[in-house]
Amino acid sequence: MTASKEMLKKLDKLLEPKSIAVVGASNNPEKLGNVILRNLIEGKYQGRICPVNPKYDKLMGLECYSSILKVKGSIDCVIVATPAPTVPEIMKECAEKEVGGVLILSGGFEEVGRGDLAEQIRTIAFKENIPVIGVNCLGIFNPYNHVDSIFFPMYKLGRPARGKVSFITQSGAVGSVIIDAASYYGIGISKFISYGNATVLDETDLLEYLANDKKTEIIVLYIEAVRDGRRLLATMKEVNRKKPVIVLKAGKGTEGQLAAKSHTGTLAGNYLAYQAAFRQAKVTEARGIDELFDLMRIFSQPKARGKRIGIITNGGGLGVLTTDAVEEEGLVLAQLDNRTIDELKKIVPPHVNVRNPLDLAADASVELYEKTLEIFLADENIDFVIVCILFQTPTLNERIINVFTTASENKKKPIAVVSIGGAYTDMYKKILESKGVPVFNSPRSAVRAINQFVEYSRYRNLK
Amino acid sequence: MTASKEMLKKLDKLLEPKSIAVVGASNNPEKLGNVILRNLIEGKYQGRICPVNPKYDKLMGLECYSSILKVKGSIDCVIVATPAPTVPEIMKECAEKEVGGVLILSGGFEEVGRGDLAEQIRTIAFKENIPVIGVNCLGIFNPYNHVDSIFFPMYKLGRPARGKVSFITQSGAVGSVIIDAASYYGIGISKFISYGNATVLDETDLLEYLANDKKTEIIVLYIEAVRDGRRLLATMKEVNRKKPVIVLKAGKGTEGQLAAKSHTGTLAGNYLAYQAAFRQAKVTEARGIDELFDLMRIFSQPKARGKRIGIITNGGGLGVLTTDAVEEEGLVLAQLDNRTIDELKKIVPPHVNVRNPLDLAADASVELYEKTLEIFLADENIDFVIVCILFQTPTLNERIINVFTTASENKKKPIAVVSIGGAYTDMYKKILESKGVPVFNSPRSAVRAINQFVEYSRYRNLK
Repeated sequence: MTASKEMLKKLDKLLEPKSIAVVGASNNPEKLGNVILRNLIEGKYQGRICPVNPKYDKLMGLECYSSILKVKGSIDCVIVATPAPTVPEIMKECAEKEVGGVLILSGGFEEVGRGDLAEQIRTIAFKENIPVIGVNCLGIFNPYNHVDSIFFPMYKLGRPARGKVSFITQSGAVGSVIIDAASYYGIGISKFISYGNATVLDETDLLEYLANDKKTEIIVLYIEAVRDGRRLLATMKEVNRKKPVIVLKAGKGTEGQLAAKSHTGTLAGNYLAYQAAFRQAKVTEARGIDELFDLMRIFSQPKARGKRIGIITNGGGLGVLTTDAVEEEGLVLAQLDNRTIDELKKIVPPHVNVRNPLDLAADASVELYEKTLEIFLADENIDFVIVCILFQTPTLNERIINVFTTASENKKKPIAVVSIGGAYTDMYKKILESKGVPVFNSPRSAVRAINQFVEYSRYRNLK
Repeated sequence: MTASKEMLKKLDKLLEPKSIAVVGASNNPEKLGNVILRNLIEGKYQGRICPVNPKYDKLMGLECYSSILKVKGSIDCVIVATPAPTVPEIMKECAEKEVGGVLILSGGFEEVGRGDLAEQIRTIAFKENIPVIGVNCLGIFNPYNHVDSIFFPMYKLGRPARGKVSFITQSGAVGSVIIDAASYYGIGISKFISYGNATVLDETDLLEYLANDKKTEIIVLYIEAVRDGRRLLATMKEVNRKKPVIVLKAGKGTEGQLAAKSHTGTLAGNYLAYQAAFRQAKVTEARGIDELFDLMRIFSQPKARGKRIGIITNGGGLGVLTTDAVEEEGLVLAQLDNRTIDELKKIVPPHVNVRNPLDLAADASVELYEKTLEIFLADENIDFVIVCILFQTPTLNERIINVFTTASENKKKPIAVVSIGGAYTDMYKKILESKGVPVFNSPRSAVRAINQFVEYSRYRNLK
C-alpha cells in the first residue's frame, strides 16, 4: 500500500506541529523518552509539549499524562519511545484521539522477527489515514520550528542551522552523523527525516512530500532496502528535474545486503540495477558518506555553465594535485582568456608564472588573492573556480574570509575552496562553510564533487 | 651527480645541529627570516642560534652577525632565507666557514628561469661536500630536538609531537598541511624534510638517509618531478623491504606535468611507468593527499595476518556501509568462529543479531563494546577489527576511550575506528589518534587504507 494524498497532506501537521506528545517520557537520563523531552524543552520548541507516562504526574516541570487519550486538546505529533509490543495499542489510542501523525522511534519489529507488530501498526495507519514515520528510526528534526525527536543529547550531537538541504534517511546512525557534521561546519538544513523500517510512510512518500516543500532546494537520500524500487526510481527521476536529488544506496554486495536485512528487516535489492537507473535519471549518486557530505555542499553553488576549471593557489603542490584531479575526473583545465593574461601580468610579482593553475606562491597577500579571484570570475573561459589556499602563510590574515564570501555571495560563478590543516585552518573553514562557501579537505574530494555537480548543471541547462 | 657517502653522513649535523645560523634574519614580521628566528626561539631549540644580517647588531635578544664568516665558533646548520641572487655568495662563505650543511628556503631559481644560480650552488656543494636541502623549500622540522625552519607561524600551523613517521616532500605546501593536520590530531612524526627543487640532495638521497635512521619506522614521500627515476625506484624497492614506503606522485597527466614544471622547474615524467614500478616493488601508493594521511596512520598498526575483517558497530547503517566498502575493495568479511558466536550470545541483549557485522544498536554500553571487542580480538578467524562508533549515543561515555586504547596497546591485532560527527566526536577522535588508534571519517577511506595495509603486511609476511 502507498500513502494516500490525504495522508501526505497530514504530514504538514507532523513536521510543523503546534503540539507534541512524548509517549515514554521519563526521568531516567538513559531512556530515550528522557532525552527527547529534554531536547524539546532545551531546543526551544515553541508549541505545547505533553509527556505521556502513567508513572509520573509531572516531568521536567510539565504536566504528565497517563495516556494519549488523557491529553487535553488536540495533538499534532506523537513521538513514541516505548517497547515494540506496546506500540499497536498506542496506535489505537492515536486513532481514537485523531492525532496529526505519529513518529515511532522504537525498534524490535521486522529486524528481530516481530513483523506482526509492524503489520498491526500498518493496518491502523492506513485505515485511519494517520501518517506514521518509523518504526526503528530517529524521527525528525526541523530547525525552522525546533521540532526534534533525535534521541542524542545536544552536547554530544549538534543541531544544524536553518538552510535548504533536506534529508531522508533509512538509517538513523547515518543521518545523525551527517547532521552532527553539518552543525559543526555551520551548514544549514531544511528538514531531516529518519524513517527506519518504513512501516507506513516510505522514502518515496517522503520524497514526494519534499518535492513540494518550499524550504527544500536540495534533497539527500540514504537508502538501504526499498520495497518498491520502480516507484522510487520513477519519483526520483521526476523530482530531480526540478530539485537535485543526491542518493547514497547502501547494501550493495552480497554481505552488504544481508547486513541491511539484519538492520531493517528487508533485502536491499540489486545494486547494479539501481546504479543504472540513477545514471539514466541523472540522479546524483554518492559512493560513500564522505561523498554525500561533499555533494550536499557543492550543490548549493550557482549552476556551472560548463566544465572548464580555473585554479588559484598559494601552494604549488596543491595546484599540481588539483590539476591531476581535474584531468583524472575528465574535467578540463580552462585556457585563460587573453584579457585575463594581460590583467594578471599587471598585478602579479615577477616570480609568479601567469598560467592556469595560477600559483601565487607562499608570499601571496589577501589583496593579490582578491584581485586574481575577481579576474578569474570575470573570465568567460572559466566555468568553475577552485581556490586552493594555505591560510597558514605569514602574509595572509583574516580578511581573506571576506574575499571568498563576497565572491560566493555575488553568485556569478560557482566556487569551491580547498584547504587542509589544523586548528587555525579549521576555524577559517567553519566560518566559510557557515557563509555558504564549500571547503574541501583534499583536491580529489573537491574535484569529484564538482564533476558530479557540473554533470547535473549540464542536465538542467539542457532542459 | 649524486651525493657522496661523506655528504650523506654530514646530514646528521644538518638534521641534529648544535648550532644554527639564520641568514636573512629580520625584525619585519612579514619576512621569512623573522618567522624562522622566532620559531626557533619559541619552539625551545636548545642549541646556539646565530642570526645573520648586516642591518642589525641584535635581534630578538640575540647577537646578530653581518655574515656567516663573522659568526664565532662552528655552525652545524645554515638556514638561508635571502633572495636567490645572493645565495651563491652565501654558499661560498659556508664553504669557507666549513659549516655542517645548508637549508636554502629561497625561491627564484629554475622555476623562473634562473637555473644558472642553482648551478653555481650545486658546483660549490659537490666540490666542498656540503649537504644542501632546497632550494625553494620549507626545510626541516625535527620534533626530537626542535629544529624548525618552517616559515609558518606556530599559531597558524601546528608542529607535531615525536613519533615514528618521517616525511620527504618536494612541495612545501603539501608537507606543511600534512604536519599541521598531524599536529592537530596528535600524530607523532620523526623527521620532516621539504627538499623543493632538489638542487643538491634529492628525494633518493634523503630516502637512503632515512632508511638508516633509527627513529624512523614509516617513510612518506611526496614527489612531483624526479631527475633519476630509475635510481629512486630501485632505492624505494630496497627500503620498502624493511620499512614501509608510502608515496604520493603528483604531476600525472599532461596539464599536471606542466603545472609541476612551472612549480619546480623539472618535468614530472611518465606517471604510468611510476605506477607500474610502485606496484612491482610493493610500494604503497596514495592516490591523493587524503589517502596519504589515512595510510600514514594505519601503517602504525601491528601487521595484519590476512584480509578477514570483523566489524562492530552501534549504528546499523555504518555497519552496512562498512560491509559494502569491504566487498568493494576485495577484502573479506570474517566468518565468526563458533566459540565467538557462543560467547557473544551470552552477553548481547535479545534485539542484537549475533553476526558479522555485529550491530550492537544505539543503546550499546561501554561494557558491551569492551566485551565484544575482546571476543573479536581473540577470534582466530578475524585478521583486522573495524569498530564503527557513534560516540554521541546517550548510553556511551568517556570510558569508551580506554576500551579502544587498551585494545590498541595490546597490539594483538590491528584495529581502526570509524567515527563521524561534530565537536564532541572530534574531541574523542583527537584523544584516540594521540594514543595511536587510527580514526577515520568514513567507512570507505578506512577500508581503502586497510586494504593497502593488508597488502603490505602480506608482502612482509611472505618474506
